[in-house]
Amino acid sequence: MSKALRARQDMEKERETLQAWKERVGQELDRVVAFWMEHSHDQEHGGFFTCLGRDGQVYDDLKYVWLQGRQVGFWMYCRLYRTFEPGTPFLLKGCLTPGMPTPQPPGGEFLLRYARVAPPGKKCAFVQRTIFSECFYTMAMDELWRTTGEARYQTEAVEMMDQIVHWVREDASELGRPQLQGAPAVEPMAVPMMLLNLVEQLGEADKELADKYAELGDWCARRVLQHVQRAGQAVLENVSEDGKELSGCLGRQQNPGHALEAGWFLLRHCIRKGDPELRAHVVDKFLLLPFRSGWDPDHGGLFYFQDADDFCPTQLEWAMKLWWPHSEAMIAFLMGYSDSGDPELLRLFYQVAEYTFCQFRDPEYGEWFGYLSREGKVALTIKGGPFKGCFHVPRCLAMCEEMLGALLSRPTPAPALAPAPVPARRGAE
Amino acid sequence: MSKALRARQDMEKERETLQAWKERVGQELDRVVAFWMEHSHDQEHGGFFTCLGRDGQVYDDLKYVWLQGRQVGFWMYCRLYRTFEPGTPFLLKGCLTPGMPTPQPPGGEFLLRYARVAPPGKKCAFVQRTIFSECFYTMAMDELWRTTGEARYQTEAVEMMDQIVHWVREDASELGRPQLQGAPAVEPMAVPMMLLNLVEQLGEADKELADKYAELGDWCARRVLQHVQRAGQAVLENVSEDGKELSGCLGRQQNPGHALEAGWFLLRHCIRKGDPELRAHVVDKFLLLPFRSGWDPDHGGLFYFQDADDFCPTQLEWAMKLWWPHSEAMIAFLMGYSDSGDPELLRLFYQVAEYTFCQFRDPEYGEWFGYLSREGKVALTIKGGPFKGCFHVPRCLAMCEEMLGALLSRPTPAPALAPAPVPARRGAE
Repeated sequence: MSKALRARQDMEKERETLQAWKERVGQELDRVVAFWMEHSHDQEHGGFFTCLGRDGQVYDDLKYVWLQGRQVGFWMYCRLYRTFEPGTPFLLKGCLTPGMPTPQPPGGEFLLRYARVAPPGKKCAFVQRTIFSECFYTMAMDELWRTTGEARYQTEAVEMMDQIVHWVREDASELGRPQLQGAPAVEPMAVPMMLLNLVEQLGEADKELADKYAELGDWCARRVLQHVQRAGQAVLENVSEDGKELSGCLGRQQNPGHALEAGWFLLRHCIRKGDPELRAHVVDKFLLLPFRSGWDPDHGGLFYFQDADDFCPTQLEWAMKLWWPHSEAMIAFLMGYSDSGDPELLRLFYQVAEYTFCQFRDPEYGEWFGYLSREGKVALTIKGGPFKGCFHVPRCLAMCEEMLGALLSRPTPAPALAPAPVPARRGAE
Repeated sequence: MSKALRARQDMEKERETLQAWKERVGQELDRVVAFWMEHSHDQEHGGFFTCLGRDGQVYDDLKYVWLQGRQVGFWMYCRLYRTFEPGTPFLLKGCLTPGMPTPQPPGGEFLLRYARVAPPGKKCAFVQRTIFSECFYTMAMDELWRTTGEARYQTEAVEMMDQIVHWVREDASELGRPQLQGAPAVEPMAVPMMLLNLVEQLGEADKELADKYAELGDWCARRVLQHVQRAGQAVLENVSEDGKELSGCLGRQQNPGHALEAGWFLLRHCIRKGDPELRAHVVDKFLLLPFRSGWDPDHGGLFYFQDADDFCPTQLEWAMKLWWPHSEAMIAFLMGYSDSGDPELLRLFYQVAEYTFCQFRDPEYGEWFGYLSREGKVALTIKGGPFKGCFHVPRCLAMCEEMLGALLSRPTPAPALAPAPVPARRGAE
């Protein structure tokens, strides 16, 4: 066989694998969204139930603001993607409340009415005082604006965003969390990550807001990047405000899935900035490094927490396999491959996706289990709870489907580079 | 064989089993205390390290107030028991700081100096705002007074106690935890339990304080008892302040080990009050009921959390086996047997003790592992951490050794009742 023929066959095979994954991911997205549409809508009071058992039964009617925001946000988000492909109105139905004249996401008005504390206060209610409720609220309001065109939603989003930025960069005391004397000033990586995500969200196809938040985006990226510590050998979840390693467990704490999520937030930042050098750094430190340290060599899957000095983490769930680190890893590796063409990243996407589909998916009732034991057994049968809603799974599937589609629409799957040498692995790790 | 002879032989056998357990427990207590004495003392700054790895290595030098208080409190506590048996000065050494004229517990002065916020504030520092740091501080100060005879320690204990009672019964707002609008007023069982324990502690052999806190003790017992819900079929961790079941997961939450701990706090209350009817109720609802629902039929051991309607709990660690529910269960069943003579309670003590010694003890480095998987595998190798210090294990062993000794010093192991029919089981469940 000629070299050219062989290369062509490899390429064909690679395209087939990508195509197969695109279909698998797309079908799974439909199933997952169907699960939430069927079980999570509160027809009586509006908003969404998120505490759903394996078969969708509501086991608690508590409504967590951030999960409400995420579900509204996701639905809109998904709509944006779906409008690229006409003829799939399936998802749009989820955004309509019957009897309303304009498309009105169920949960959008619910959020606006109940999630905020009474004006002039600019806060959302949550069990613990962090900025995350406000962030997901902002994201949801922005998506609402994009879908309905109603300006009040954007005003609401921008006002809340400015409040969040004030808390993060100027004065955290208003958040109402008592700061203990002598406690170190900690920067959890989640804070600049979340803000970076909002910068991306609000500035999308909006030059005025993109310009307004450009400096903030650079600041967020710098703050996330300073979590790379120990001469580039570890991403640490918490550092001091001036970018130094903190002492003890808090300082050594690592969360591979969170680093991978930060990775794809940063990759999008690199695309906006057109910075391939930063991209290579991000792939190295936020994708490959956390995967190498965090992938369980015995049972597969990503550990939830690790200690940078290999002490036993103090989190009881450290060795459990959670759904969201795996969905974030799928996004990160596929985005890394799409941007760089590095076949190793595609191979890792296949490895993580195969584990994830085999271990987390529930073929019987739909959606994914959220919590597996170290060995991969289902530890909690719930499909939704205080920390799992309609967010990570559909976001991952929608983004992966879109990226796979974009790869397949290119003349070759990975321009300027050889095709991925390792085919999809169908067996679980 | 005559009936009388057989009964006598059974009784002899039972005494042998009790004696064997007394020795086993006593030896284990010495080993456990030796572990903490060797590894936890901070010679440089005072106080105790509690973040200790499997072999005792300090992996974090953070000092949690409540664990500091517990360690001081335990050491004194243990001393009280040990003084009943002359010739065991081993433990007393742990209370002495070399070079000081009077026995001075290391950690006692440390607590007084650093745990409290600056006067006139009456609070202790802790990561989260609850009353528990203050409670363990109070317990430690009281034990310090009993050991050293220095009045300032008792003054400190009583002043803090009165502050705690004020928070619990009059005004919780000073604790500084923001109460969200619309959030239900929850009473976690831990609050009246903790106070009941302090009433016992402060009133011990002190008629004046016992009288002062007698009404409080009754109030606490009533509040703990109102956690028995659903026509006596479940002990719920959280109820409303007026003793009704709360909605959702919070309302249905059960913690078998915590119910068992409440059980022995209540048993001591029953002894003080001389109330055998209440005792029978407590044995039934706080000992037998949680054990029957909470014991894992497949792998043995007590589940950490359960849902009263058998939904899957949302706590990631719900099926893990933690050390402290097992040490509390050992105390509860042995105390229940000592008080009532019911052989079923002795059998359950043996069952729990056998599982506990086989699964949690670390024969190699001493002390107990704290966290096992559902199947009984060690999930965290740490011996101490943010929630595990020198407290539950030695308290359990010291109390059990003392109760076993008291049982053996009676004319028959269980007066007025037949001996326990089931011998000690040496195999793990």
